[in-house]
Amino acid sequence: MVQTTLCFDFGNTRLKCAVFNNRELEKVLVLENDSNDTIQHLIETYKPAKSILSSVVNHNPVLEPLLASASRFHKLSHQSKIPITTPVGKPSDIGADRLALMSAAVDLFPTFNNLVIGLGSAITYNFVNKYHEFLGGGISPGMEMRFKSLQLFTAKLPLVEKDWNLPLIGYDTRTNILSGVILGMAKEIDGMIDAYKERYENFNVVLTGGDAPYFVYHLKNRIFADPDLIFKGLYAISEHNNV
Amino acid sequence: MVQTTLCFDFGNTRLKCAVFNNRELEKVLVLENDSNDTIQHLIETYKPAKSILSSVVNHNPVLEPLLASASRFHKLSHQSKIPITTPVGKPSDIGADRLALMSAAVDLFPTFNNLVIGLGSAITYNFVNKYHEFLGGGISPGMEMRFKSLQLFTAKLPLVEKDWNLPLIGYDTRTNILSGVILGMAKEIDGMIDAYKERYENFNVVLTGGDAPYFVYHLKNRIFADPDLIFKGLYAISEHNNV
Repeated sequence: MVQTTLCFDFGNTRLKCAVFNNRELEKVLVLENDSNDTIQHLIETYKPAKSILSSVVNHNPVLEPLLASASRFHKLSHQSKIPITTPVGKPSDIGADRLALMSAAVDLFPTFNNLVIGLGSAITYNFVNKYHEFLGGGISPGMEMRFKSLQLFTAKLPLVEKDWNLPLIGYDTRTNILSGVILGMAKEIDGMIDAYKERYENFNVVLTGGDAPYFVYHLKNRIFADPDLIFKGLYAISEHNNV
Repeated sequence: MVQTTLCFDFGNTRLKCAVFNNRELEKVLVLENDSNDTIQHLIETYKPAKSILSSVVNHNPVLEPLLASASRFHKLSHQSKIPITTPVGKPSDIGADRLALMSAAVDLFPTFNNLVIGLGSAITYNFVNKYHEFLGGGISPGMEMRFKSLQLFTAKLPLVEKDWNLPLIGYDTRTNILSGVILGMAKEIDGMIDAYKERYENFNVVLTGGDAPYFVYHLKNRIFADPDLIFKGLYAISEHNNV
């Protein structure tokens, strides 16, 4: 019998919900909002047996009781049963999205020192060693944030839309911004990978987030891109905590 | 006899004025505002023979007539006499600050293909070939803009102050952001330099802006840092246009 799990990933730019039928990721929905109606509609449509939420925003407070009344529900936090330990820093400060990414990486590549790079509203660099200790990493602005901030914090620069067809040497304002933002991000990512590589043997990188497949083409490092890594992590965590 | 030139650089974050006595840069002032009083005070204090303005913001409209009434004044634009040509794009779209940086670079390193990287509100990558043609480059968010946008465009990240003492692997929210923003920028800059280097022989890089001396320590490329490059450019342009 097919059992459905809803995996919610609430980030700063988008609210997403992945629908798993058993272990299979069927689809990823982008939600317009997290109102009671939206959630009720999802519950009626998919009749989930289980659900899990990763949120780094201040979401609708009724969301959690709604899901809990209709399914076995788990809210991901540093207190969840996850396959990694967090020996440094303050575990409660680590974004739930980063915990899900790390969990997926150690599930997929358990014998490696793993760097997971998440391309979302922010770029997160997440390093988990081969002992499955999450040691931290880095946070820098994501692509949309870079485009928006150039407009917002300057008097005369326009808002530029992403375009993967871009030159190294921009020849007008738009192509200058495309080069600086998109190639600049690719160079940042390549350089960060190199810095970890110099320090760690037996090293693996996963790039994730919706734009990951586009960025791999601009990187000199040959790496694995998995846009759905966070949902694979959330599904695995749901299986361990919704028992 | 000593002749004073005031060189104004109005950027998105700061309004600066460099005081030259003959060819010598005496000091750089950060202005609190560009009110008539502020400018009048500068005129009375320094009694400039010449003045020049590079502005990428919407400045006080009385500023230009005030300076013109007290000194030989030039406003830098694409119509100024400068030692570079702009064969691509729309010359009127090129920020005056970039024209000044390019002019300084070809004055200092006339036989090279020059990449000038300006660290300001935005990072500007400015490429001028050995024929002194400005071909364009890139624009990406500057350091303060990256810190501010992480706070502004996310629900839970704090505003972090720059700190040059930082780890590769951040262990709490603050050090994650320091690593992502500052090391991320250094990696971006190194990677962009490498991309130009692959394409051009006889290649020279100058890094400028107030934070340039700090960034050179984080770069693998051995390059020249000159925080005052823009003022050297403005002075030279003033000499050619205020005749």
